[in-house]
Amino acid sequence: MVIISDSTLRDGNHAIRHQLTVNQVSGYAAAAEKACIDIVEVGHGNGLGGSSSLLGHSAASDREMLEAARAQLVRSLLGVHFIPGLGKSADIAMALEIGVDVVRVASHCTEANITARFIEQTRTAGKTAYGVLMMAHMASPEKLLEQAQLMERYGADAVIMMDSAGYSSPNMVRERVRLLTEHLNIQVGFHGHNNLSVAVANTLVAVEEGASIVDGCIQGFGAGAGNTQLEPLVAILQRSGVAVATSFERIAELVEDAGKCLQPATPHIQISNIASGLYGLFSGYVPHVQRAARKFGVNEFELYKRLADRKLVAGQEDVIVEEASRLATEDSFNKMTKASEALG
Amino acid sequence: MVIISDSTLRDGNHAIRHQLTVNQVSGYAAAAEKACIDIVEVGHGNGLGGSSSLLGHSAASDREMLEAARAQLVRSLLGVHFIPGLGKSADIAMALEIGVDVVRVASHCTEANITARFIEQTRTAGKTAYGVLMMAHMASPEKLLEQAQLMERYGADAVIMMDSAGYSSPNMVRERVRLLTEHLNIQVGFHGHNNLSVAVANTLVAVEEGASIVDGCIQGFGAGAGNTQLEPLVAILQRSGVAVATSFERIAELVEDAGKCLQPATPHIQISNIASGLYGLFSGYVPHVQRAARKFGVNEFELYKRLADRKLVAGQEDVIVEEASRLATEDSFNKMTKASEALG
Repeated sequence: MVIISDSTLRDGNHAIRHQLTVNQVSGYAAAAEKACIDIVEVGHGNGLGGSSSLLGHSAASDREMLEAARAQLVRSLLGVHFIPGLGKSADIAMALEIGVDVVRVASHCTEANITARFIEQTRTAGKTAYGVLMMAHMASPEKLLEQAQLMERYGADAVIMMDSAGYSSPNMVRERVRLLTEHLNIQVGFHGHNNLSVAVANTLVAVEEGASIVDGCIQGFGAGAGNTQLEPLVAILQRSGVAVATSFERIAELVEDAGKCLQPATPHIQISNIASGLYGLFSGYVPHVQRAARKFGVNEFELYKRLADRKLVAGQEDVIVEEASRLATEDSFNKMTKASEALG
Repeated sequence: MVIISDSTLRDGNHAIRHQLTVNQVSGYAAAAEKACIDIVEVGHGNGLGGSSSLLGHSAASDREMLEAARAQLVRSLLGVHFIPGLGKSADIAMALEIGVDVVRVASHCTEANITARFIEQTRTAGKTAYGVLMMAHMASPEKLLEQAQLMERYGADAVIMMDSAGYSSPNMVRERVRLLTEHLNIQVGFHGHNNLSVAVANTLVAVEEGASIVDGCIQGFGAGAGNTQLEPLVAILQRSGVAVATSFERIAELVEDAGKCLQPATPHIQISNIASGLYGLFSGYVPHVQRAARKFGVNEFELYKRLADRKLVAGQEDVIVEEASRLATEDSFNKMTKASEALG
């Protein structure tokens, strides 16, 4: 049995700058419940406590969104994304009090140690804790396993490999998920982004290698080029004989229902999204990079490359502006040098 | 070296009901030449002689489109799609006279025998002939190899596995392409459709298994949910160290140039496209099925399923209407039966 964790109301919130309304959350959660989705993840794109001037304020508060979803879910579980630092222990306490079933405690792929107390807090409350390793392409398979084993030791019920940048190829996913499922005694999951148009294939490879939790969004909703699109994913899983609680027919209804409440802005795989995936930057950075490139009159692709060289991870939006400004200064300096050489 | 064959001006013509104008063909061909695309395929979506009331009339004639492209191409080769029956020997003669370099002679995956004389005609004229096996998911790997070997014997320079329905999973492609490359002495190619969101992954698997010709369209242009999207395909190939004449940067420019002449209607992967892929119908049938379903008031998904059960192949658009009408009759009959049973 493969568990479908639907990120439409969380990662999808990135696609509309966190402007999901309480009514939209409520409407989609009801549709997801009807479609037998296992877990409905809800909140600001960056998770609990993500609403800020740096990351963008969400239209509804964490509490409002979680309560709206909770009221609609019976069989489907309610999930939240949580990044230590953006969110605090009190945010998890609030989420648990509202009735969240699954807390997904996330860290950069090499910083699992910061997740310990939040995984413990969730497990102590008798709820399910997933450890999430973000930007997983930045760690070697062995490093990723080491970090996943830390999360297992902290008490996580599962570890999710998150390809935040949409950088990974199917072979990269195969190598990493295989190592995780071989050495962990807890469930393994995969969360993909579609920057290079291989999110569905990456997820199928993860399942082949033993992953039993898969994340996706309807209609490719999600940061950047969108997440793994649930409709084709479920279609292929079902045809391959993989057991899922939902079905292609139910997902088709979900998409129809969602059309009424979400007005999805389908992300096409734009060149900018591909460049961001190719260099391995966090998918949510694309609009920030585009804005900074325009503001400072620098080349957008060059900026992705520079930021990747600096090994930028999620939550460093301020560095984008800083690097764009530096690039602009360098550009002017180069121009002046050339001009004075020409005058020479 | 992997050859990129760009189908934007041929399979992409399906996306806009064959309404590409001479100016658009000319503009895009010039951009493709600049981007170092190896082969630019041009024409009606169904190839030479495809313009008809059954399949839809193209805005420009075969001759007009080919001449327009020919005038722009220097290093890039000019290709045409040819289905015996839709096209005639005289059409190939005309195409060769205009200066077409590559004639892609296509048949249903079990009917390679009908391609013999057209492959021969092309080779006799000193030009390159590709044999194309359409709807390749409908043949077992062994059957596909047998048919490919026929094409090889007829003198084809390459055989292309065409996943016309977008039905294939990466594992299906792996099995088939592996068998072809193991047993053929000519090049093998792959042409994907993105109905199940795995066209890029399928193409990468084909290259891993030794395919050296890959088809794609920019921005997912193409029948149904679109073809393999060239931008992410080239990005991943390049990152993987596969040699290609073009590059991600050149493709990025191509997309920008194309935006000026094509106004691409990006196909999102709609539920209808997924259903068509799931059941293994020709990707170009979706609008025909939707129209017929509306006209006769029958369930669209049921209609895909019925047509798949009848093993419908390309060029049988008339059967869609016939089956929709039959389904409507059955529906009324069932209702009447139920009503009379209720009256008892």
